[in-house]
Amino acid sequence: MVKAKVWLLVRRPDGMPVPEDFKLVEEDLPPCEDGDIIVEAEFFSVDPYQRYKAREIPLNSPMYGSQVAKVIESKNPSWKVGSYMVCYPGWRSHTLITAKELKEGGIVGYTPLPEMAPLPRSVALGVLGMPGNTAYFGFLELCEPKPGDTVLVNAAAGAVGSAVVQIAKIKGCKVIAAAGTEEKCKWVKELGADYVFNYKTTKVGEEIKKAAPNGINCYFDNVGGDFTLQALPHMVTKGRISLCGSISSYHNDRSKLVANSPYDPAFIISKSLRLEGFMVPNWASRWMEGINQLQEWLVQGKLKYKETIEEGFQNIPKAFIGLFTGNNIGKAIVRA
Amino acid sequence: MVKAKVWLLVRRPDGMPVPEDFKLVEEDLPPCEDGDIIVEAEFFSVDPYQRYKAREIPLNSPMYGSQVAKVIESKNPSWKVGSYMVCYPGWRSHTLITAKELKEGGIVGYTPLPEMAPLPRSVALGVLGMPGNTAYFGFLELCEPKPGDTVLVNAAAGAVGSAVVQIAKIKGCKVIAAAGTEEKCKWVKELGADYVFNYKTTKVGEEIKKAAPNGINCYFDNVGGDFTLQALPHMVTKGRISLCGSISSYHNDRSKLVANSPYDPAFIISKSLRLEGFMVPNWASRWMEGINQLQEWLVQGKLKYKETIEEGFQNIPKAFIGLFTGNNIGKAIVRA
Repeated sequence: MVKAKVWLLVRRPDGMPVPEDFKLVEEDLPPCEDGDIIVEAEFFSVDPYQRYKAREIPLNSPMYGSQVAKVIESKNPSWKVGSYMVCYPGWRSHTLITAKELKEGGIVGYTPLPEMAPLPRSVALGVLGMPGNTAYFGFLELCEPKPGDTVLVNAAAGAVGSAVVQIAKIKGCKVIAAAGTEEKCKWVKELGADYVFNYKTTKVGEEIKKAAPNGINCYFDNVGGDFTLQALPHMVTKGRISLCGSISSYHNDRSKLVANSPYDPAFIISKSLRLEGFMVPNWASRWMEGINQLQEWLVQGKLKYKETIEEGFQNIPKAFIGLFTGNNIGKAIVRA
Repeated sequence: MVKAKVWLLVRRPDGMPVPEDFKLVEEDLPPCEDGDIIVEAEFFSVDPYQRYKAREIPLNSPMYGSQVAKVIESKNPSWKVGSYMVCYPGWRSHTLITAKELKEGGIVGYTPLPEMAPLPRSVALGVLGMPGNTAYFGFLELCEPKPGDTVLVNAAAGAVGSAVVQIAKIKGCKVIAAAGTEEKCKWVKELGADYVFNYKTTKVGEEIKKAAPNGINCYFDNVGGDFTLQALPHMVTKGRISLCGSISSYHNDRSKLVANSPYDPAFIISKSLRLEGFMVPNWASRWMEGINQLQEWLVQGKLKYKETIEEGFQNIPKAFIGLFTGNNIGKAIVRA
């Protein structure tokens, strides 16, 4: 019998998540029957979007999230023991996936992982996975960058932001990027950004004005809040905004409707701005187009990535909470 | 010598405009020299956007606005005495337009008006002018309505909103419309809207939920503020929002950046919404396409309009202020 460790969501986070919102339990997996497989997690992804999921999933169920997992038992000819996949069983060390789940989840729910050496398999949770495609499609499709455009990216040392910085450079844009520590800023500069500022120690509006005296054509927003409030007046007429995230407001109480968005209609109208929100599954049908292009750039050395790896299943909540205090550079990963 | 009456902007409106923000003066026009013309206003347009202009134009200059004017003196062979034009000299009864201004302003600044009978010439300031094209391009280009889509329009008894309601019906959409009096609601219903509610006496969110249980595909927003706050949660995934105006916030103090917009990133992201602001001159190069189509619909009886006409040059500020208290049904016009 296989024993699984599981992090349950036992309380809705009130503002910033805290360790007590989660509880570690052990359970015995049911036996692996015909068509089923059992997988063991190798890497977990922690991502800001999971803060939203914590509002939605049932309490006392496994916390939502993706992982790279290894098939350790199989009664399904499509999945060989020793093969790897990306899947979404949540924060579980071991998972029984039934024949029915494998069938219904399809390739989107259970993605086979090819041999990735010399890259670590964790990259399938980062630059060659959901965050990579978030940058690829969310930036290229919604910001429609043209060579010579000035692009603004915040949270630029994050998994998504760092990819956007580099894709914008590949596309011939001038890139203005913001991050929250000197170390992060240094790395983003190494990635090729033309101007990098530490938004915690400078005035956002003044930095943007200095870096982009002719204004911003494309804004890839991961942050929202005060950053966006200061940035919006610097958009050029017909500027495009890709609204990827709003990490500054993820902890806001949403039980009442409150008008506290930084996206002032006065600017949007007078500058004829286009603002578009997205979820990366919108491009599910073009998924491999993004991954293949990102992989090509990676191989060509045009795309770099970093990972901040936390060791140990027991530290998943800690790594997750760390996302909101800016602990990670690049992709935040937990090794099981 | 021709005497002109002129309404000057003498003070920046602080919140709602008041009569004291404007001052009526008289002036003698310079003589009409070679290539010049003198025009006399017949109709003035008052529009919500002029509230913005009152933040920008120099103090003690004529208040900004368009008019239908008749050429009463001409030393320019292109402009015959007795012919009409739409022009933007501001709130002036008589205006000398120099040869240089006529040349530089081009057809956009000084649009010749064809014989319009049986329609009144004032229609060139409404459904066959800027507000008509605002509805035509702003709705069709940004909301991209498809037959069967559910469309939400507010300020639906206004010059722009009433045209959007009818264009949406022509395009095969279901139309949910809001206006601020029973009389306005009755008229909007006559225009063909499927569901009309008085936003002042009902709960906006509940009305939308009742009228559009499957959600809103296209939202044409003239109002912003609390209306939009209540409407946004009812947008469908990949809904399109045309941000035309924000009359509820035109009087806000804009000396500081404040995050008080109703366009919550959480909804925009999670529903993959597209929000686009615009100014109708964006479509200057396609101007007559819109006007000709609107005229065709008007002739076919598919498009109806109303005007609220205030009599007398001295009442322009009153008609303008009335826009913000909902005095007008259809297009607000002042007859000189």
